[in-house]
Amino acid sequence: MLRKGNLFVISGPSGAGKGTIIREVLKSTQEIEISVSVTTRESRRGEVEGVNYYFKSREDFEKMAEEGGFLEYARVYDHYYGTPKEPVLKALDRGENIILEIDIQGALQVKKSYPEAIFVFILPPSMAELRQRIVSRGSETEEALKLRFASALEEISYIEKYDYYIINDTLTASARCLEAVIMAERCRIKKDVTELIENFKEELE
Amino acid sequence: MLRKGNLFVISGPSGAGKGTIIREVLKSTQEIEISVSVTTRESRRGEVEGVNYYFKSREDFEKMAEEGGFLEYARVYDHYYGTPKEPVLKALDRGENIILEIDIQGALQVKKSYPEAIFVFILPPSMAELRQRIVSRGSETEEALKLRFASALEEISYIEKYDYYIINDTLTASARCLEAVIMAERCRIKKDVTELIENFKEELE
Repeated sequence: MLRKGNLFVISGPSGAGKGTIIREVLKSTQEIEISVSVTTRESRRGEVEGVNYYFKSREDFEKMAEEGGFLEYARVYDHYYGTPKEPVLKALDRGENIILEIDIQGALQVKKSYPEAIFVFILPPSMAELRQRIVSRGSETEEALKLRFASALEEISYIEKYDYYIINDTLTASARCLEAVIMAERCRIKKDVTELIENFKEELE
Repeated sequence: MLRKGNLFVISGPSGAGKGTIIREVLKSTQEIEISVSVTTRESRRGEVEGVNYYFKSREDFEKMAEEGGFLEYARVYDHYYGTPKEPVLKALDRGENIILEIDIQGALQVKKSYPEAIFVFILPPSMAELRQRIVSRGSETEEALKLRFASALEEISYIEKYDYYIINDTLTASARCLEAVIMAERCRIKKDVTELIENFKEELE
């Protein structure tokens, strides 16, 4: 029996280490693939269509959005970014797991467009540690830091909308934890398990 | 923050390999302990009180049952077997995970007495394979085999009451899968996560 794959949505305050954990998991497992976003921004040197992004004109993006072609999308300054619905749903139907790193607003959109998705929140070990990580990225004024810090705290209050959380103490432990979530969700009993029982019954007849 | 441990209830038709998977998981992880049952049967040579079983008189067992001292219990022929509530709840409060191998009737009792428990169903790879495993245990008449087989099929129809299922194709894969479930459930967002948010907020003040 081919089971549908799962869509994992990963969020968390910037500086919590989402990207690093996802890259670590992608290295060690064949179980999951990352979703490729659509954007209206210009491609940068070295970026490959369909690998880094799908590049589209603003008109095409807006048309796609109107037709419900996105699981979620957002406008950031002058450009649109979105998760295209069709390739993700097709991959899930093939039994593949898909991972999606997006902010909380995007995650809330996915909760509406694809409620079966599994939502994982990445947390820094502590607010002090988060501050440290944000500061060490450098190039921010004291004012900008305060803003980032406040917005991180606001974001964390959305954690109850999520299914799992990972406190990113060490990269190895966090990656193992996300892998466990991916693996465990493969074994979760959902509606399609009736099919499994039917198979067993048929074997008997 | 000390999180409460989880109680894992493992069921599945006899011959599916529950016991073997659990032993394999206990070997490779410190994350979980097995619950020790109470019984009224005589202790056998080599069995140790508190390790294999807690041995009790019939009167003591019945009194304990009346006082709601069991998460589940059953009478099998002339003897009672039960899962004592107190040591399990205390261990969970200490943050330990507890594993419990019981039949479906017992599992349904636990669903009432401790609904937060996590229910895992172990399945044989196929009915043909299950038949093979039952037969190879030997010492059963054709009639007894048919009965076991029919009851296995009946049991499988309870799978929708469970949270996870593991198809026991190979021992290693099944054990890894149960370990993933145990680990993932550690990261699951439950009510107590509000405490976590409060901690972050306090750090800021």
